[in-house]
Amino acid sequence: MKVLVIGASGRVGSDLVEKLLADNHQVIGTTRQDQQLFDADNYSQLNLDITAEKDDIQKQLADDIDAVYFVAGSGGKDVLEVDLHGAVKTMQAVQDKGIKRYIMLSTVFSLDTSKWGNPAIADLKDYYIGKHYADEWLVNDSTLNYTLVQAGALKEQVGTGKITVNSDKAGENAIADVAATLVAVLDADSASKKVFHIQNGETPIKEAIASL
Amino acid sequence: MKVLVIGASGRVGSDLVEKLLADNHQVIGTTRQDQQLFDADNYSQLNLDITAEKDDIQKQLADDIDAVYFVAGSGGKDVLEVDLHGAVKTMQAVQDKGIKRYIMLSTVFSLDTSKWGNPAIADLKDYYIGKHYADEWLVNDSTLNYTLVQAGALKEQVGTGKITVNSDKAGENAIADVAATLVAVLDADSASKKVFHIQNGETPIKEAIASL
Repeated sequence: MKVLVIGASGRVGSDLVEKLLADNHQVIGTTRQDQQLFDADNYSQLNLDITAEKDDIQKQLADDIDAVYFVAGSGGKDVLEVDLHGAVKTMQAVQDKGIKRYIMLSTVFSLDTSKWGNPAIADLKDYYIGKHYADEWLVNDSTLNYTLVQAGALKEQVGTGKITVNSDKAGENAIADVAATLVAVLDADSASKKVFHIQNGETPIKEAIASL
Repeated sequence: MKVLVIGASGRVGSDLVEKLLADNHQVIGTTRQDQQLFDADNYSQLNLDITAEKDDIQKQLADDIDAVYFVAGSGGKDVLEVDLHGAVKTMQAVQDKGIKRYIMLSTVFSLDTSKWGNPAIADLKDYYIGKHYADEWLVNDSTLNYTLVQAGALKEQVGTGKITVNSDKAGENAIADVAATLVAVLDADSASKKVFHIQNGETPIKEAIASL
């Protein structure tokens, strides 16, 4: 498949691109950096500014893209422009371009504000608000075939290939397993129009995705 | 009518409350300040924190409120918590309480992102993004009988009682005329489920509202 990864230089994004390339997908990675991030025949790169106007974003999208990942993040520095409005503009551009599949990496309990009293979340309140309204747009206002993958704290841990889905409590996530989960949902019918959260766990990723 | 004014100490809010009191409405003004803002038999005050959880906001709402005004604003200092999520939580609380009428003061072109290249708006981008998603929630996701009044730059000018509605260009607004417009839409059928912007102009306010 031809896949666009928005935020290819990030911690999850770079691992995701590597895995997609290894699976022989044609990958376009977006970054604001000039240097080429990956050296592979099936990789190309796009300098995409998601703070630009929606129509300018749309013009930069290739016609034959099959699926889009959003794994960009402002790191809390520009939540309104990047995590909220930047994300929604990419959804609108993708939708108006006629691309159907959109996979969003988000954060655990982004849609469930009743869980926001948790101290770990309260410290990230602005970030949660930004992700919340972007995720709400995707789920309630778009016509995209979305998958919304919500992760907890991202850790530089060795991946195990195993996760737990939709636990009542937030947990940690090995970045490699988040990236592997994003790859696994790409063409999984069971993940179509699904919202779920993941953490380090005991179920092989493919099996966890099949059970959604 | 019994009317709740969220943001009663603001420049528009205080003028709005005065006009509603003069019209013999029962007014509850919300503020974070301790001192009583107005001395009138038909005025009472509520210390309402819109950064609290939605259920806690809802518990503070009287059962017999007929209409709610949202004229609060963070002044750009807390856009995510106040102008966006705080506003939406008041909509949700009002709706879940069974109150139907909700009147929002917003900013010109809040829903029309194609106009955001205008330099005056570009300087206020974060504020516009916050207002945009709050206004979208009101118009697209709520079941409230809303009126969304969008004003341009607010000025301490003498009110003329006249406005122009839905000009192609943004303009200035005498605060007194914004407050008078908000009063005029309160029970105007023509303003039900309407979005419009106002500026200083030539049409008497009642006539302008009747023509919506």
